[in-house]
This record gives sequence, C-alpha cells and structure tokens, in this order.
Amino acid sequence: PDLDAATAAMQRERQLTKPAGALGRLEELAQWVATWQGQHPPEIRRPRVAVFAGNHGVAARGVSAYPAAVTAQMVANFQNGGAAVNQLCESADADLRVYELDLENPTADFTQGPAMGEEECCRTMAYGMMAVEMGVQLMALGEMGIGNSTAAAALCLALFGGEAADWTGRGTGVDDEGLARKIAAVEAGVAANPQAKDDPLEALRCLGGYELAAIAGAILAARVARVPVLLDGFACTAAAAVLYKADRRALDHCVVAHRSVEPGHTRLLQAIGKEPLLDLGMRLGEGSGAALAITIVKSAVACHTGMATFADAGVSTREG
Amino acid sequence: PDLDAATAAMQRERQLTKPAGALGRLEELAQWVATWQGQHPPEIRRPRVAVFAGNHGVAARGVSAYPAAVTAQMVANFQNGGAAVNQLCESADADLRVYELDLENPTADFTQGPAMGEEECCRTMAYGMMAVEMGVQLMALGEMGIGNSTAAAALCLALFGGEAADWTGRGTGVDDEGLARKIAAVEAGVAANPQAKDDPLEALRCLGGYELAAIAGAILAARVARVPVLLDGFACTAAAAVLYKADRRALDHCVVAHRSVEPGHTRLLQAIGKEPLLDLGMRLGEGSGAALAITIVKSAVACHTGMATFADAGVSTREG
Repeated sequence: PDLDAATAAMQRERQLTKPAGALGRLEELAQWVATWQGQHPPEIRRPRVAVFAGNHGVAARGVSAYPAAVTAQMVANFQNGGAAVNQLCESADADLRVYELDLENPTADFTQGPAMGEEECCRTMAYGMMAVEMGVQLMALGEMGIGNSTAAAALCLALFGGEAADWTGRGTGVDDEGLARKIAAVEAGVAANPQAKDDPLEALRCLGGYELAAIAGAILAARVARVPVLLDGFACTAAAAVLYKADRRALDHCVVAHRSVEPGHTRLLQAIGKEPLLDLGMRLGEGSGAALAITIVKSAVACHTGMATFADAGVSTREG
Repeated sequence: PDLDAATAAMQRERQLTKPAGALGRLEELAQWVATWQGQHPPEIRRPRVAVFAGNHGVAARGVSAYPAAVTAQMVANFQNGGAAVNQLCESADADLRVYELDLENPTADFTQGPAMGEEECCRTMAYGMMAVEMGVQLMALGEMGIGNSTAAAALCLALFGGEAADWTGRGTGVDDEGLARKIAAVEAGVAANPQAKDDPLEALRCLGGYELAAIAGAILAARVARVPVLLDGFACTAAAAVLYKADRRALDHCVVAHRSVEPGHTRLLQAIGKEPLLDLGMRLGEGSGAALAITIVKSAVACHTGMATFADAGVSTREG
C-alpha cells in the first residue's frame, strides 16, 4: 500500500463539496484505488476483465446441472460476444480477456487424489500472473468451469473447516439428488487429500482447478504490479481465500464485487472479512459481478477526482 | 404496465445463455424497464437525472448542520459541474437537469401551519411533471434542499404513524442538540397540521416542500409517459410515498436506487414494500444514488438485449 497516495486521497476527500462521509463506500473505493495503484489522483481508464476457464475431473461425478462440454461452449460464446460478461464489459467500457486452460484435459477427479500435480499447479498460477499486463489500472477476475463450485466448496472446507454441506450449494442449479452427490464429492475430496488442510497452496493444488490456480496467480501479480482487483463470486473468492489463509493481508488490494446467491459465499466472505459491493441475487460466475462492479468503482473515482472543493465552489461549510 | 412487453421480456430471458435466474435482479430490471416503457426490447439510450431544489421555512429552526444558503450554492455547483451528481451523470452518460424552485422564497415553517398553499403545491407538482419530456427513456429523481430530511421525516410520520424519533436522523450531520431540535420540529409540524394524517396530498402540501412536490409530480407524469423511474434516498422516497398512500400501485413503475444511511429510509422502504438496488452507505441526496444506479439498469438492459440465446450460441442446455 502506498501511504502517501492514501493520505493524499483522504485529504482531498475532506475538501469535496459534500458532508463528510456522505458518499459512503464510494469514498472508501476511491481511497482504495489510490492506495493500491500507488498514485493520487487514482485513475481507471483501462480496466480489464480476465475470465479463466478450466475443466474439472470431478464434473464426471454428476455434480452440475450442465455437461462439462458447456465450459468450451461458453468460452466460444465469450469469444463471439454473446455472454452476459460481454455485455457487462461493453457497458463498463472494460477490456475482456478470456483465458482457456487446456479445456480438453480436465484436472484429475479430486475424490481420488490431487486435482493437479505440483508443476501443473505452479505453471497455471504463473499463467494467471501473465494476465496482469502493463498499463492495466483495475483487474476484475472471473471464471468459467463446469464443476467449479464443487471445487470451491472443497477448497473452503479444507481451508476453513465446518461441514461439506455448509459450503455446498446448487451452483448452476442442481436438483436435490445432484446436491447430495455434490456434498458427497466435497467430503470425499477433502478425505482423499488430507494434506490440503495444513497448507493452503496444497489445498489449491489438490482441490482447486486450473482456473482457480490462475486466479490466485493473477491476484498475486496484481499486488506486485499495483493493480487493484475486483473479485467475482464464490469460486473466484475461494481461489482468493487460498492466499488469505497463507497471509491475512494478501487480499487487502482486493474488493469483492458482489455477494453470490451460492450460500457458501456469504460464509466465505465472513471467513475472510470482506463485505461485497453489490447484492443483486446473481450467481452466474464468468466475471459478471466483477464486471458490473467496475462501473461503481469508476463512478467512485470520478467523484473523487472530478468534484469541486468547498473553497473552489464557494459553498459554505458546516455552521458554527 | 404493458403485459405484451412483459411477456416478451420474460420469454427472451429464458432463452439467454445462462442458468435461469442466474443474473438475479438484473433480469428483473430488464423486465421492469420493458414493462413500463411498454416496449420490447427495452432501451435506455437517453436516461435523465432530474434534481429539484427548494428551500424550507423549517430550516430556520436549526435542524440542519448547514445554513439554508447552501441550497443555492449547491445548485450553482451543479451548474458548474462540481458536485457528485455531475460526475455520476457523466459516468452513466446521463443528461442532468437541475430545477430551482424559487429558492429565495422558502416554504412556510410547517411547525406553524401548512408549508404550502393549495395552488402553490399544485403548481409545483405540475412544474415537476414538465421534467418528463418526450424521448426520455429512464428518469432518475433527486433533490437538494437544506432542511428537507426534516420535512421528509414529518411527511413519513403523518403518512405512516409511529414516533417522530423513528423517522428522524442526522441528515447532513447534525449533532445531538440539532437532532433533538429536529425531532421537536417534526413533532410540532405534525401537531400543527392535523389534516395531514388523513389525506396524503394534504400531507405533501402541509409538511413537504417545493422539491418534494415536484418529485411527486414527476413520478405521476412518468407513469403516463411510460418512463420507468429510479428514486434516490430518503427525501425522494418520502415524496414518492405520498403517492403510495393514495394508491398502492402508484409506485410500481419506480425502483428505489439505494438505501440511505438515514435510518428513516429503511423504515420507509418497509412501509412501501421496496427493496433498494444498492446499499453503499450513501446519504448525500442530490440524486447521487439514483444516478449511480442508472449504470446498473443500463447493464441489465444490455444483458437482456445483447446476449445470445442457447440456440444461437450452440450452448447445451441442462442435462437430462
């Protein structure tokens, strides 16, 4: 964090033509952007939405309402501009990048052992790091991967404990039997990978997936590159939580964009101490909530940088 | 409401490349815009933010942290582009219009009798109606008026009962003594205008103010002109609540943009059965929350109109 930029932002905020604190979270967001960009005034002319797509061996266990082929089909939909995230990026004037992570080769089924090998997991994290290119001023991270709310639930169970059912929801919409299979897979995954409980990066390797490892890498790279990060829903936040478990301050440059309907997300947000910006009943993934929140962060920065001060505008301050 | 447009919106929504309901409130918003515009597809190329400014006799009773002169100073700030709402309109690509309502002549002090005469109140409502011009596709309404959270609290007390303290908060930031004066003024206003309890429009005339009457007029005109409306915070919603008390369906074409920190707002939202879109700790007024929410509504419409269908994109539907 850049304390000079943070101080400059706080000082300017106090002089703007509004009662102190009246813009609430928008004031905090502007200061957050300045602090993590390490510059004042903050600027968001070039936001990027990065969506990572991966396939999961565990999907073969019937844990999703959709077949695994949908991951690649949705990636094609992103490339053709037909998905929700395309429209949201256009509305937010954000640059969308989609990263396919070897969709033809899913991770191993984690109910039988580690989802990824060590080198595979490291290489995928490094690949995610490369999404943070020079000049990007805000990153919004998202994912696509049939089966990944199962992986996210298993990750959360290993990282934070509790019961499998606490972390497992209906994802894209499984029925009761599908939900029971999903809970069983989450339990079996954690049982089959006992080392995941003791080491967050082992949890990522054993229970995560390619898109989740890439997201963790992108978050790390953004920290170094001074790029504030918006996290999307449950799967994305679960990937981020790996870093939180390794270091409590690792997500200070991240804001959670929205609260997913997926019940594990609220529990996870409590575990990592984050309050989401939006709560609009969304549960789509693909970076949709993070892309939507870009407009809020841009508006916050626009207020901070564009408003007149009391002195400039000749507006009276408080009485007395 | 246009049921053909509503049906067309619902049918299209089901075919879009996402699990049913996965965009949550964004899906509802797109259908709401179509229903009240009376067209499918819905469109929001020309949103307007209308901010009405008025002064209040009751401000002389020391109910605000700021002097009454600030109303006109802030209007000048709006005109010079220096206020929060200017930046938010620019971010949302919305057209800002500011309507000054005879700022040199405040309403009468409602602790001594009606704030407005009958003709005055009607004329102000008619003036507000004129803000809804041809071609506007979404209206966001807001207000500026030192003392108007006191007027709003008095309106709510007359319309919905309870205690003056239930509806009275710190507004722009009064101290404890100011809050006590404010509560006393709210009580005195309702006591001095007993007819306000029996007739919502009398409540508006006796306890409201010019900007609040204009907002009520604009909401009525928007209904007739097929323009969906975004309501800002406490004062704006209190003006709208007058219409709700007269007719429970009168606000069906309105969405409340954000939940104000002003505690009376949450109570008022419960009374009129509205769930706000945003909850970002804002309490500025001047249409800021409504302007910010335009970006959410635009994004909702962009998803609805721009997304591919399952058939177009060749994406598999649910298994089984």
